[in-house]
Amino acid sequence: MSGNSFGTLFRLTTFGESHGAALGVVLDGVPAGIELETACIQKELDRRKPGQSAVATARQEADQVEILSGVFEGRTTGTALAMLIRNKDQHSKDYSDIARTFRPGHADFGYTAKYGFRDPRGGGRSSGRETAARVAAGAVAKKFLEKFSIRARACAVEIAGIPAPVTDWDEVENNIVRAADPEAAKKMEEAILAIRLKNDSCGGKVYCEITGVPAGLGEPVFDKLDALLAHAMLSLGAVKAISFGDGFEAARQKASEHNDAYLGGGKWSSNHSGGILGGISNGNVITFELAVKPTPSISQIQKTVDTEGNAIDLEIKGRHDPCIVPRIVPVVEAMAHLVIADCLLMQKQNPFR
Amino acid sequence: MSGNSFGTLFRLTTFGESHGAALGVVLDGVPAGIELETACIQKELDRRKPGQSAVATARQEADQVEILSGVFEGRTTGTALAMLIRNKDQHSKDYSDIARTFRPGHADFGYTAKYGFRDPRGGGRSSGRETAARVAAGAVAKKFLEKFSIRARACAVEIAGIPAPVTDWDEVENNIVRAADPEAAKKMEEAILAIRLKNDSCGGKVYCEITGVPAGLGEPVFDKLDALLAHAMLSLGAVKAISFGDGFEAARQKASEHNDAYLGGGKWSSNHSGGILGGISNGNVITFELAVKPTPSISQIQKTVDTEGNAIDLEIKGRHDPCIVPRIVPVVEAMAHLVIADCLLMQKQNPFR
Amino acid sequence: MSGNSFGTLFRLTTFGESHGAALGVVLDGVPAGIELETACIQKELDRRKPGQSAVATARQEADQVEILSGVFEGRTTGTALAMLIRNKDQHSKDYSDIARTFRPGHADFGYTAKYGFRDPRGGGRSSGRETAARVAAGAVAKKFLEKFSIRARACAVEIAGIPAPVTDWDEVENNIVRAADPEAAKKMEEAILAIRLKNDSCGGKVYCEITGVPAGLGEPVFDKLDALLAHAMLSLGAVKAISFGDGFEAARQKASEHNDAYLGGGKWSSNHSGGILGGISNGNVITFELAVKPTPSISQIQKTVDTEGNAIDLEIKGRHDPCIVPRIVPVVEAMAHLVIADCLLMQKQNPFR
Amino acid sequence: MSGNSFGTLFRLTTFGESHGAALGVVLDGVPAGIELETACIQKELDRRKPGQSAVATARQEADQVEILSGVFEGRTTGTALAMLIRNKDQHSKDYSDIARTFRPGHADFGYTAKYGFRDPRGGGRSSGRETAARVAAGAVAKKFLEKFSIRARACAVEIAGIPAPVTDWDEVENNIVRAADPEAAKKMEEAILAIRLKNDSCGGKVYCEITGVPAGLGEPVFDKLDALLAHAMLSLGAVKAISFGDGFEAARQKASEHNDAYLGGGKWSSNHSGGILGGISNGNVITFELAVKPTPSISQIQKTVDTEGNAIDLEIKGRHDPCIVPRIVPVVEAMAHLVIADCLLMQKQNPFR
Repeated sequence: MSGNSFGTLFRLTTFGESHGAALGVVLDGVPAGIELETACIQKELDRRKPGQSAVATARQEADQVEILSGVFEGRTTGTALAMLIRNKDQHSKDYSDIARTFRPGHADFGYTAKYGFRDPRGGGRSSGRETAARVAAGAVAKKFLEKFSIRARACAVEIAGIPAPVTDWDEVENNIVRAADPEAAKKMEEAILAIRLKNDSCGGKVYCEITGVPAGLGEPVFDKLDALLAHAMLSLGAVKAISFGDGFEAARQKASEHNDAYLGGGKWSSNHSGGILGGISNGNVITFELAVKPTPSISQIQKTVDTEGNAIDLEIKGRHDPCIVPRIVPVVEAMAHLVIADCLLMQKQNPFR
Repeated sequence: MSGNSFGTLFRLTTFGESHGAALGVVLDGVPAGIELETACIQKELDRRKPGQSAVATARQEADQVEILSGVFEGRTTGTALAMLIRNKDQHSKDYSDIARTFRPGHADFGYTAKYGFRDPRGGGRSSGRETAARVAAGAVAKKFLEKFSIRARACAVEIAGIPAPVTDWDEVENNIVRAADPEAAKKMEEAILAIRLKNDSCGGKVYCEITGVPAGLGEPVFDKLDALLAHAMLSLGAVKAISFGDGFEAARQKASEHNDAYLGGGKWSSNHSGGILGGISNGNVITFELAVKPTPSISQIQKTVDTEGNAIDLEIKGRHDPCIVPRIVPVVEAMAHLVIADCLLMQKQNPFR
Repeated sequence: MSGNSFGTLFRLTTFGESHGAALGVVLDGVPAGIELETACIQKELDRRKPGQSAVATARQEADQVEILSGVFEGRTTGTALAMLIRNKDQHSKDYSDIARTFRPGHADFGYTAKYGFRDPRGGGRSSGRETAARVAAGAVAKKFLEKFSIRARACAVEIAGIPAPVTDWDEVENNIVRAADPEAAKKMEEAILAIRLKNDSCGGKVYCEITGVPAGLGEPVFDKLDALLAHAMLSLGAVKAISFGDGFEAARQKASEHNDAYLGGGKWSSNHSGGILGGISNGNVITFELAVKPTPSISQIQKTVDTEGNAIDLEIKGRHDPCIVPRIVPVVEAMAHLVIADCLLMQKQNPFR
Repeated sequence: MSGNSFGTLFRLTTFGESHGAALGVVLDGVPAGIELETACIQKELDRRKPGQSAVATARQEADQVEILSGVFEGRTTGTALAMLIRNKDQHSKDYSDIARTFRPGHADFGYTAKYGFRDPRGGGRSSGRETAARVAAGAVAKKFLEKFSIRARACAVEIAGIPAPVTDWDEVENNIVRAADPEAAKKMEEAILAIRLKNDSCGGKVYCEITGVPAGLGEPVFDKLDALLAHAMLSLGAVKAISFGDGFEAARQKASEHNDAYLGGGKWSSNHSGGILGGISNGNVITFELAVKPTPSISQIQKTVDTEGNAIDLEIKGRHDPCIVPRIVPVVEAMAHLVIADCLLMQKQNPFR
């Protein structure tokens, strides 16, 4: 209730700071009987982990996951499923300079206002590193959803202003920016490296689609499916906007253009709405797009103040992502899987259906 | 938990269908001692109620609110605060034709998939009419936040493709489209009327800003302030997208352009983030923009199927809004007030601060 | 979350004060498709309403219930189900004397400490009158559980020290004390009337059993079925203790005496545990007993202080129950039905079972 | 929401099975700034850990706790506080015989009905070993409450039918049964050992009092303080009953005997209610008593059936507590501290008080 949990029936509670002892997650409500190996969780974590490529931070973390509870002889037991990821490569000293400053674009000032002080080691709890725990949890949700042939996939559709069409989903893991188009991917990679050379960083857009979702998911009126997805995605610190289906373009359409009509047999005339009408899935593919801001930690000198209010020139050292978009792709998928798993359980609980 | 409640400490639970007996809301967690008159709630409801102008539905509802509990001698008691709004002008027969059809752009199909059947009278629970209960609740939150000089204001910044700058907030209630610019308002009004003549409808964009919010609101990691606002706003059926601060533009900025730096004394170098960094308010003005889709109910003939799957030509009769943007403005403010009130209570509960 | 809601999936939120405009409840999570008439709710309310007999308060309230939402053409729709009960016979002036006193045995002092002031009209929100809303909600749960042949029944097993065996459940509604034994009932009635003559009141014990509950309900580790039932029952202001199965006698048994053993085919060797082992129903009858304290409002003079701390002699006027046990019986059943309905939905949500 | 979490603002989520890799807990909502050392948590765990004495199981577990997150430089940060306890002495083979049986007095049958199968190693999640995580969490709550001079203390007041008066709280840790009277303690110890010799086990009663609780804690109407405490205590598998203040005796008192009257200046005429009136603390000492059943695992032969329904003679091997009362005492204190900490935060969040 104080922010470290998400979901109603398929519910995760995460913990851990960027440079603390460990990250982890407790999943409550995982149905009993799902076959679950550590390997399928590790696979997702490997996609998110740092140190993968030239466009990501050089921090080295194996992000090895250990299942602590909730699995017996390879199957989920229905009880609390906990997973642990130890932090290894912490370099706490790298951050000693900035303990007394408010880094631009970061939550430092807000956390200090909120708690009276803050853990300055790599951003503490506000670091994007906490998303590793989400990815571990999302892997369990993904495994569960496989039984229903439901799957979320995301990719980079714009980085540093360079657009990438969704040409081929199979290409996403073949390039280090996670675009679904090889040529665009190459340009994106070059753009990021050029920006990194200038000690700067860039943002981009992530597209996600969820296939196989049956009609009827989402709960009126406050837990509409799009509301839950928006909550999930905006809970990622780097995400600044979300749009479903035609998104902001819908604001310029007339109903005669925008309305999706049901054709029977699970078919729709169009999908301007992104698969969600009135907050309830309609059986169409669910689609949304996210705006990802540029990573705030850059090594060029920035103006800010210290905790006493004195103006200073800040130079952030350490190892940072020049563009977080490629690494946020598996996190977006994880959150999508978690939301859908929760909504599916909510829907399945009706004993008359 | 099943979707009709929202918030943790300042929590509302709503009920009621478009053509049922009544709409209402129970507010749990309203602090004791707030001076509250029915009039201040009625005032907000009057801004949302139908039948106000030529650009809104002709349905006539006084939307008279009655406080049923939680107020004693003009002050909130701290116990459950319930409010009731009776439906009057229901015209149920207007909807009899569409009981067996799936209206394009509506939740009809999703509700049927979800529940096995649906209340077809004006959309039942899926109707935007439920937002009256939110506005009543939001008026209480607004009153509470006045003590802290916190205020949310929204206005139409685009309708039918016509943009309106935020020239003067005092103009918003002087025109029937609720734009903050008189000239743009006039053009918007004309555009809506032209579209209505063609039996069509249009959407637009709503801008909202919240002033006076102290730094430190929002809870890491899942209940980030922007995540909660996104959840709240996307729980409005007509909203298809939300963006904070620079929104999708942030995806094209570099960190050196995008980063907001603290200058001390409550001042920031810029507000690209929309007043929220890492999910926590930073003391700056909170800003976001919403995409509102065109009202799906239009009276021109639309292709769809009936509940048996037969293709039909549907002509929706009844009285509908050619553009919902003007009437959604007070709803957006209400939801913003509710979120901030909840976050403020979450923050105040720390006994050491 | 602030105390006016109960349950996770089958969730009620109540409102209303003893002498306010109305009492009511919103039920969230009621499955769609349950046939529901006002009459079946009214029937339960009639069992709880005041003014029924010589052993109850003389306050006259019809406690007429109105369904405001969530039902369409006699069936639940799956959306929020709200019910309203208007207060009629309020006699607010009867309570004017005690506005500035802290009545012994009442929550007056606690509410004042909590909220800074209190609604003194008949106890406001702290009055047992709020349980009318629970009974209305419980009637819906009861109707739902009928589909699964699950039923909770309660009766008075002790009043003013007079025990009543559970001889015949069919007798419970045939006597005004709601005992399951006609002879004991007569003695109980006489005892209450004698105590009332002395301007005093008495308590008693209520026994409840729930039949038809399948094995497997309750959630480890905090939402054990007995924990939820205890929560539900102790949320009744007059209840001071709860014991399951052999209760406090279990503390004196050895495991060789106490252990219930499964015999196969749904049979158990014994039921010392009251149908719940390790917090999970085992398919046996669920049994528990409650201690109900004497109604604190009595008309003999009592020593107390006023809100300024001056010692006073308090004489409470008005119409009070000399023994609340008979009227609490339907409330206990209502809460039992609500808990079981919620646990049943929690269990049904597992898509693999 | 699925049972592994408890509390609203000061909220714990636990995980772990008796013979799994580890037990642990995530605490959400711990206020920032509390000085917290591992030692103060370890101290409480040492009171609960197995292998302490002749009246407890011989299983050897150091129950070493590790703080994984939420503490920086010795102070809580306000973010999720996770703690881990590795299982060491698991002896899984001891339990291989009973994998296919339903042990009398245990949750085996219920878990199998619930989940379709169960983790048979020492009871899996249903084992009382999970309470180690509660004790760790309770130690944090205790530390927090020290700032407000609030403290819960429990002791054994009856074991195997032998009563122990609350003579001297300082004696509780001086005897292995945790009674507050040395002489009674000796008799209790002898009784347990005699029962153990017969391969049997016994139960008892635990008394708990909470001092320093301000008036005003608890939330009407469902989250009454006694309802929350009852929920907390009945969530312990061995607890079968709870009574507040005079408990079941209250059922035999008249209001003229039972009513507690306020005398001003924080004094009350009596404390029959156990410090809670109408569900709200009144500033008096909070008192309650629990019935603890005999440990179900005994080594004498018991009749039961196997999972195929065949009657068998079961002989449970392994190391079990002949009486769990002494070890449940610190668990009761932990749960009491957790409930009060949560209620205190709920109360503190009112910005007007």
